[in-house]
Amino acid sequence: MALLDYFRSSKPNTTASLAKERLQIIVAHERNDRKSPDYLPQLKQDILNVIAKYVKVSEEQVSVEFDQSDDLAVLELNVTLPDQH
Amino acid sequence: MALLDYFRSSKPNTTASLAKERLQIIVAHERNDRKSPDYLPQLKQDILNVIAKYVKVSEEQVSVEFDQSDDLAVLELNVTLPDQH
Repeated sequence: MALLDYFRSSKPNTTASLAKERLQIIVAHERNDRKSPDYLPQLKQDILNVIAKYVKVSEEQVSVEFDQSDDLAVLELNVTLPDQH
Repeated sequence: MALLDYFRSSKPNTTASLAKERLQIIVAHERNDRKSPDYLPQLKQDILNVIAKYVKVSEEQVSVEFDQSDDLAVLELNVTLPDQH
């Protein structure tokens, strides 16, 4: 899977990062029919709720990026977790 | 965001794909402490349940890939939706 390489290469190579646990979630939604609803904002909140079931995470530990073009929307959630949780 | 380019380039360039709506979800979990629990399998099911809230999706429309190395696990869900739903 080429994606494994993608995430490997994007991994910050700092000493600090060695002590961290990271969770990265990416949602790409491709709509050719522009009339179809865009549910990514709601989906984002639902996914955050789901993550909270497994790990204790506060809002400042989550960074959210959202990028949209004509027919493609990409949502990226980055969660950095403390050593012990 | 470089990821937008990644998804753009990985988009199948076929006539059939023009009529489809696609949803791709990637979860990357980096654990430096191997003792920490791996909740990706449960997370996968939860995310599928969340998606089902927004789109009607049957199991055969979802392809799942899972790749794991020492400290990195990557889960990839690909959902291809029919034109009308």
